[in-house]
This record gives sequence, structure tokens and C-alpha cells, in this order.
Amino acid sequence: MEAFEFSLPTKIIMGKERYDEVGQWCAPIGKKVLLHYGGGSIKKSGLYDRVRDALEAAGCEVTELGGVKPNPRIELVRAGAALCKEAGIEMILAVGGGSVIDSAKGIAAAALADCDAWDLYTGAAVADAALPVGVVLTIPAAGSECSAVSVVTKQDTHDKRSFHSDLVIPRFAILAPDVFTTLPRNQIANATVDVISHVLERFFSDSTHVTLTDRLCISTVETAMQLGLWLYDHPEDVDVWGEFALTANIAHNGVLGQGRIEDWGTHGIGHELSAFYDMAHGASLAIATPAWMRYVAQEKPARFVQFAREIMHDYAQDEAQLIESAISDLEAFFHRLGLATRLSEADLAGADLEAMAQSVVKYKPRGQFKKLSAEDCLRIYELAR
Amino acid sequence: MEAFEFSLPTKIIMGKERYDEVGQWCAPIGKKVLLHYGGGSIKKSGLYDRVRDALEAAGCEVTELGGVKPNPRIELVRAGAALCKEAGIEMILAVGGGSVIDSAKGIAAAALADCDAWDLYTGAAVADAALPVGVVLTIPAAGSECSAVSVVTKQDTHDKRSFHSDLVIPRFAILAPDVFTTLPRNQIANATVDVISHVLERFFSDSTHVTLTDRLCISTVETAMQLGLWLYDHPEDVDVWGEFALTANIAHNGVLGQGRIEDWGTHGIGHELSAFYDMAHGASLAIATPAWMRYVAQEKPARFVQFAREIMHDYAQDEAQLIESAISDLEAFFHRLGLATRLSEADLAGADLEAMAQSVVKYKPRGQFKKLSAEDCLRIYELAR
Repeated sequence: MEAFEFSLPTKIIMGKERYDEVGQWCAPIGKKVLLHYGGGSIKKSGLYDRVRDALEAAGCEVTELGGVKPNPRIELVRAGAALCKEAGIEMILAVGGGSVIDSAKGIAAAALADCDAWDLYTGAAVADAALPVGVVLTIPAAGSECSAVSVVTKQDTHDKRSFHSDLVIPRFAILAPDVFTTLPRNQIANATVDVISHVLERFFSDSTHVTLTDRLCISTVETAMQLGLWLYDHPEDVDVWGEFALTANIAHNGVLGQGRIEDWGTHGIGHELSAFYDMAHGASLAIATPAWMRYVAQEKPARFVQFAREIMHDYAQDEAQLIESAISDLEAFFHRLGLATRLSEADLAGADLEAMAQSVVKYKPRGQFKKLSAEDCLRIYELAR
Repeated sequence: MEAFEFSLPTKIIMGKERYDEVGQWCAPIGKKVLLHYGGGSIKKSGLYDRVRDALEAAGCEVTELGGVKPNPRIELVRAGAALCKEAGIEMILAVGGGSVIDSAKGIAAAALADCDAWDLYTGAAVADAALPVGVVLTIPAAGSECSAVSVVTKQDTHDKRSFHSDLVIPRFAILAPDVFTTLPRNQIANATVDVISHVLERFFSDSTHVTLTDRLCISTVETAMQLGLWLYDHPEDVDVWGEFALTANIAHNGVLGQGRIEDWGTHGIGHELSAFYDMAHGASLAIATPAWMRYVAQEKPARFVQFAREIMHDYAQDEAQLIESAISDLEAFFHRLGLATRLSEADLAGADLEAMAQSVVKYKPRGQFKKLSAEDCLRIYELAR
């Protein structure tokens, strides 16, 4: 086990309709609230009105900024930071999924910084303060509600980059399972893959003496598959949504990674699919994961044997056959969720493989379990054709 | 799943010899430090000197209060609170296990209260402020390093009582596995039982839609048994101590109880054995657990079937036989750790059963999975003869 430090300061508030409490969580932090969200879905569902009512009932003064897109854009982060400065905003309430939360974190840091917002993502500047962020979650998947990370995209240059700062860890996150029952099936599928990937990025590790976190990873990924599939077929099952939201949270709140060196190569491979083709994050991981596995298993089979036996419950005695069965089974699971696991299935010809491969490792090394060169990335993309 | 709120504000600092960093963790919180500890073991091991040196190097001014006993006493809490007031203490550093941490929490709250310290435990007064508490852990078992609970004993009246306040949750806890390698085997045995019990108190629950936390509980209790037994035979294995310390922490930091109604009846039964016979906490649970299980399984067998199959890996098809096998196997495991699982094996005649049974439920109801009356407690104690 590696030395580590860990805490989980975000207050998770789980329960049906608890967005009605949001005013009482915000008001002690700041009464001038930037309400940040995506498109029209929260207006259609009524969540927008419930949140506004709760904020106003608690005496909060609300400024609005909607329009966050999946793979959130740096331009909106810049606009949000300017708005916060102008309006004297005291806290940001993100009502949305990972994209909205990531956008809110960027705004939170950029609003108190003297640099251009993109500098925080390139590393040219480091946040030394941030407005507090709170969350009403609308998609349990990204795990951004407890994390210190913000990922945004600069579309003109196909750049999808992140920054990490404890200052932007949300103060609270309301997980009200009734909110999730209206999610479209393709988003349920994407969410399931994202949660699975968050666990696998931690599972694939060279760290030793990690018996407990191995088991916790296995338990969490098994549960994510089981519940994700159930919800894909029964999106209205509010009780299971509560379980799934907890699973998605634990998958990425850091508990499972304690004392482990994590990999994150698959996310690097997937991010370029989003940056180049504006593909949803979960959908990109359904393509990136099997290809990454096939490539890395050749060099380091032992963890893949464990994956095959303990997670996919495959049986074959021959090692290569066992591993291939498990990866095929995972692909079959993704297909069952209506997802493409190859670029060709997603109607992508793969003309940009070389450029994407270069881009994966352009700003920082990717992968720990398998450190990826641009050449490695190209081979993985080729396996994903 | 039940509605819940959860966070984990304590910063866990895991790694060999990281007690040498303790000064840098304390100084930003408070430089006038009360160093609180038990007996001579930390002096003999050299930990005391390393901690003092680290505090002084960081410019902290140290006041000392040693002498905490297992099942810590209210008298020392009172004395500590008076000392804090007198010396203008700004933070308390507990160097020890659950008893020292619980004592430190009591002092932290009593130092800023106008009442007698015992009033906090009886409920006659509620803490509205507390000095900050930090921890250098010497026994990974009690999980007190992340909890809001303090348990102390008033020996003249056989009272073992607790209070709960978020104000006393430790700010940080240093888990340095090298510290644990000198623990005597009986303490390793007691620690293992305590960790197992912390998980089982959460596992035995009527809450539904708890697939994930069921699996996490099962993973954690299996790991605790496996590692605890290994350490009982190989107390010098510092890498496994790191794993065990993480397991002990997760067992009681609240992660496993999210969305579940927890039981805590067994702890109630065990506490009286400590209060009446000054029995170590873990040792008391080795007696209380099998008896509680035999009693409650008669009324509510389903969870015990799951315990038998998924935790103890027992096979019998007949339900009663299956459950009894699993409980017997757990007893055999406790025996393997050199522990008594009956009062008679601990050379206790059981003359106080009636008084203990009354005492379990004297101040508050005990048990949620099975709500215990004094009559229930008496029957459980009789099963433990």
C-alpha cells in the first residue's frame, strides 16, 4: 500500500426531494448565489422552479447562468467568472451533472483569479482561492460532486484539459433520486460506463497490499453493472436510483483509491474522442476501455486474470482465452446498453487516430499501470477501429 | 435505502513514520498543545520522543496529560478539562488508541463547557464548542479517529456512557503502520474483534436497497478476519498493518453505514461487560457477538443466512443448521485468536447478569435490527454463560 492522505469534506445529502432543502444549505455559505445549469431539462422537469423557490425562501439572491453543454466549454467558464465579479457572487450552485459541476468549479476559481480562466487548465496559473461551490446533482455518473477536478474543453484546438484544486471541492451535494428517473436511456448507459471506468482506473494498479481496496473495487464495479443494467430497463425505479447514485459517488470519491497508484490511461484515450468528435464521456469510455484492455493485457496479464475471474466471473483455464472472454463479455455488456465499443460502430472512420494519439500525451504523461507513449495510444486507437 | 447525510472531514495521513510530520499538522490549528496519552508504551517504543520532537520543531508549546486507562475514566476527563482552561490549551493531540482519543474528545468538549464533564455523557448538557483534536493512532481498532463519539466510564456506578458531537471529530489522524508492530497479541485479537463488530453492527439491518453497502460490509469483514489472523501470527508485518489500519478505519468511518439503519445492540451488551468487569472492549464483543446472534437469529433468520453464506462461507442447506454453523465458525475464529467466547471461559460466574441486563437499557433503547428489552438482554447474557 502506498502512503496517502484522504478526507471527504463534501456533505452528501441523499434522499428524495431533498433539493427543497437547498436554500438552507446555501444561505450559511453565501446569499448571493450564481445558479449554474445546462439546458432546458431542469425547467421541463420542474427542478429549476423547486430550486429557485427554495433559494428565495432562504433569502438568497439568485443570478443565473445556464447553457452548459456536455464537454463544457472554456468560453462559458470565462463568461461565468466575469459575471461573478460583476454581480459580487458569494457562492455557485451547480444544478446538473458532471459538466455543469466542472464548469462551476472553473468559474469558482477563475472568479477570484487575475489570469485568463484557461491558464488554470494549462498550468500557466494556479488557483489560490475559489468561491464555494454547492451541487444539486441531476446525473449520478461523473463523481464530480466530491472531487477536486474540473475538466473543460477548448473546442477550436480540440483541447480537453483539467485542473485539480482542493479549493473547488463542493461543500455539499444533494442527491435526490427522484431527479434521475426522467433521464433518457442513452444517458443511463453513459453513466453506467463512466462509473465502471472510475473503478477500473483504480483497480488496475501495481500497488501491493491492497486486499481491502481490491475487494471494495470489485464490489463497486459489480454493483454498478447490476444496477446500471436494471435502470436501463427500469428508469423509473427511484429506489434503485438512490443505490446507483451512492455507487457512482463511491466509485469516484477517493475511498476506493486509498493507498493505490491509479491508472487513468483509459480516460486519457477517451477524452480525445470527446475533444475530436464531441462524443459523450461515457460513450467514449465504452470504446476506449476494451481497446486499452486488449493492449495492456498483453504486457501485464495478472490483473486482467483477476478482472476476468473476480469481476466478470469468467472461467477459461487458458490465460489468454480467459482474458479475451472477459473483455468480450464487457463489450457485450456495453452493447446491451446500446453503446458502440468500436469507432466503426459509432460511424467514425478513424482518420484522426494519429492526431488523437499525439494529443493524449501532449501536456502530461498518461497512465500509471501502463505508462502510455503516443505510439501506445495509436495502437490502442487502432484496436478500437 | 434510508435518506442520509455523510461527510468524512478527518484528514487521514497514512504512511510509515509519518508521526514525524505531526508538528506541521498541529501548528496551523493551535500551538499550545495538550499531549494526551496512556501509559508507558509510547515512551518505551520511542514514539513519545518522536512526537514531542516534531511538535517542538514546529514551534508548539506542549503540556502533558498521560494516564488514560482502557475504558477511559470520567475523572481524567475532568482533570484534563481543568488543565486546558488553566494552561490556555488551543488543541489536543491524542497519541493512543480508542481510549485515549475518546478521553481527548471528552476533554475537548468539557474544556469549553460550563457544566461538569459527566453531564455531557448523561445528556444533561450538550456541547456547543470544543477544542480541536488531532490523533497519532497507536492501535487501529476503535475507529474513534474519524468519529463524533466519545465513550467513558464512571467506575463507581458501573456507568459506561457516550456522547456524540460533530465538534469533536478529529481534524487529522496519523496512521503510521510501524507503530503497530509492537502491539501485544491480545491487543491484536481484541482489535480484530472490534473491527469485525463495527461492520456487523451495520450489516445487520432491515434497510432495503442496500446492495452496494451489503457488499462493502462483506468485503470489509472478510478482510478484517484475514488480516487480523495474519497479524496475530505475524505482528511484525508492517505492510499488513497498513492494510489493517485502513480496514479498521473504513469499518467505522461511516462509509459502510450510508443509507442503512444500524443495530449496535451487541455493543450495548458488550459495554456492560466492560463496565462491570473492566473487560477490554474487543474481548467483551467476542462474548457478546455469538450470544446476540443466537438470540436474534431465532426471530430474524434471513440476514443470518446471508451472514452464513456470504461472510462465513458455510454451506448447510438446512437454515437453522446453516446459521448455527456460521456462529460456531465465528466462535472458532475468536478462539483461534485466544479469546473467550463465553463468560465461563473468561472465569466469570455470571452473578451480575440481571444487573447488567437492566443497565444495558437504563439510559437509552439499544438495538435497531432487534430492539432490546432488559428481558432480551438477560436472555442474551444467559446464552453467553
